[in-house]
Amino acid sequence: MTAEDFRTIWLKPDDPAIVQIIDQRRLPHEYTVHDLRTWQDAATAIADMYVRGAPLIGATAAWGLYLAALEDADPANVQAAAKSLLRSRPTAVNLRWAVERILRIVATPGPDLVQRIRDDAQAICDEDVEISRGIGEHGVALLEEISKRKRGGTVNVLTHCNAGSLATINYGTATAPIYFAQRRGIDVHVWVDETRPRNQGSQLTAWELAASGVPHTLVVDNAGGHLMQHDMVDIVITGTDRTTRCGDVANKIGTYLKALAAHDNDLPFYVALPSTTIDWDSRDGIAEIPIEERDPEEVSHIYGTHDGKPIRVCTTSNNTPVSNYAFDVTPARLVTGLITERGICSASEQGLLGLFPERRGP
Amino acid sequence: MTAEDFRTIWLKPDDPAIVQIIDQRRLPHEYTVHDLRTWQDAATAIADMYVRGAPLIGATAAWGLYLAALEDADPANVQAAAKSLLRSRPTAVNLRWAVERILRIVATPGPDLVQRIRDDAQAICDEDVEISRGIGEHGVALLEEISKRKRGGTVNVLTHCNAGSLATINYGTATAPIYFAQRRGIDVHVWVDETRPRNQGSQLTAWELAASGVPHTLVVDNAGGHLMQHDMVDIVITGTDRTTRCGDVANKIGTYLKALAAHDNDLPFYVALPSTTIDWDSRDGIAEIPIEERDPEEVSHIYGTHDGKPIRVCTTSNNTPVSNYAFDVTPARLVTGLITERGICSASEQGLLGLFPERRGP
Repeated sequence: MTAEDFRTIWLKPDDPAIVQIIDQRRLPHEYTVHDLRTWQDAATAIADMYVRGAPLIGATAAWGLYLAALEDADPANVQAAAKSLLRSRPTAVNLRWAVERILRIVATPGPDLVQRIRDDAQAICDEDVEISRGIGEHGVALLEEISKRKRGGTVNVLTHCNAGSLATINYGTATAPIYFAQRRGIDVHVWVDETRPRNQGSQLTAWELAASGVPHTLVVDNAGGHLMQHDMVDIVITGTDRTTRCGDVANKIGTYLKALAAHDNDLPFYVALPSTTIDWDSRDGIAEIPIEERDPEEVSHIYGTHDGKPIRVCTTSNNTPVSNYAFDVTPARLVTGLITERGICSASEQGLLGLFPERRGP
Repeated sequence: MTAEDFRTIWLKPDDPAIVQIIDQRRLPHEYTVHDLRTWQDAATAIADMYVRGAPLIGATAAWGLYLAALEDADPANVQAAAKSLLRSRPTAVNLRWAVERILRIVATPGPDLVQRIRDDAQAICDEDVEISRGIGEHGVALLEEISKRKRGGTVNVLTHCNAGSLATINYGTATAPIYFAQRRGIDVHVWVDETRPRNQGSQLTAWELAASGVPHTLVVDNAGGHLMQHDMVDIVITGTDRTTRCGDVANKIGTYLKALAAHDNDLPFYVALPSTTIDWDSRDGIAEIPIEERDPEEVSHIYGTHDGKPIRVCTTSNNTPVSNYAFDVTPARLVTGLITERGICSASEQGLLGLFPERRGP
């Protein structure tokens, strides 16, 4: 996954009428490359979660519009496809952003619409890789410093959920510093939180670290505190879905508990983020960020394999009431720093405005 | 489960040659009463985890020796059975304690050995119920106080793992205050942590609370911090496997993370324990208590039902490295108080010695 040319979505080298993705639904049990031949294929891939992760969803929609234009370059056709694609995952912010970006190209008169859309879909992917690269280059300094302090000993990183290559185009966000460390020959090992209820850690992060040859160990979400008490963790790095202007961080449920444990054990807790996920209009994450409640069946049922065949089992009584909050908010006071594509800053308004001065008020 | 005469092990009322237990392996999917007719049946029930929880394992061994005496009251026969029973779960402290207690009766000359063993097995159970009752009566005061402060509003308790009736003879330890609150008409609701990797919360605690009609909601282990941040938890009560002289608490992995979250949100965090689990010879739990590492398959594989049939599935790649620490230690500074059969005290040497003055040094 860390190779320069390895991506989660790409144009088929010998057939530019086909866009290819990894069917992430089958991970970690099976690695399947899936062909998108029509914009409808792209819509299905988004809606049925062949692809997930905000940047990758956006890129898939952009490539979907390229496939629509390839079929029929009439702007009305591309616009109709855009309308349908927007419905494939209605709450995904990057989906809307990418579709609107392509629609601006459609609205601009000029020759060869297909080529122009193709170039912009490619640019969306390339820009996302650049953001991840920036996060990786800035974040790797943290791991280098720990490696030096430990005289080349293993740097143990703990991460929660999947803020990895599979959620982006390449490198990921939380994983980017790890992949960059591996390249520089730093001895890095990752504790992978299982991440109940959807198990993105055991299903996706463990898979992509294995694919890249990064040493790692899966643990249940309950284990992180014990590992930190016993000097088995040097740094925690997670991703985030939304960061407030003051540095509060909304991320996968359970992130807050790991931040508390890091704080209690005097360990650094960093959050990696593309600046596009900063919500400059909100300040107090706990009070202001609404937390999605998802289907209770994500908790009561689980996918796995039995005799090599995928199967879904129920792990509770049928009548057990379940609640399923998807995210929690880690207050800025527990966050050692934010790793962005522009550099690392403190989790505070002052820190963020230092890197993004254009966001200062009038 | 809360009825005075409901227990996890009992002599069959119309046939005192049979000891009955709940086959806990089938919970929550099936409630099955299992007959023990020989001491070998008792050994199997312990080894194959039909029963678990220290007090219940001890009681099952005691009743196993009663069955051995019933078959052949020759002391040599009972002693041979004792030797085998001790091997059924070699590390269980209560197993050895109960077996040695019955062997002292065997070694004491006197008439009707069978009746004397039967009386003592019954006494072991009755004494355990009394300990749970003591914990319940002292602990319920905490819930009553919260109920009064909330003017009769719902008292939300969060618990981790199963320190319930199913681990003891009745009432449990962490659950005893909850069952006593229910009896007194207090409006109580329990957040049940799933408790990965063995899911004792979703499989056992949720089941026994449902069986007793106590309102409850299952959540993943990651959710507790979010619930506490949003005033959805009033008090945390867990059990413990071992408590040091200074009040450090070793309990199921993940307990420490909940204690941190309670502390960060100014919420009371109590630990319920029979005084038999206090290790008066240890002080610093993190340094001194060895933490068991268990089979990685407990993490990578999970039991559930599919089309009503029990089935075990693998949830990870076959080659994912897994580590499986079973317990963690919550330092005394995070524990608001200890609920014992003698009363509630601070989690400190001073607090414990106040309740157990016989443990003061010379």
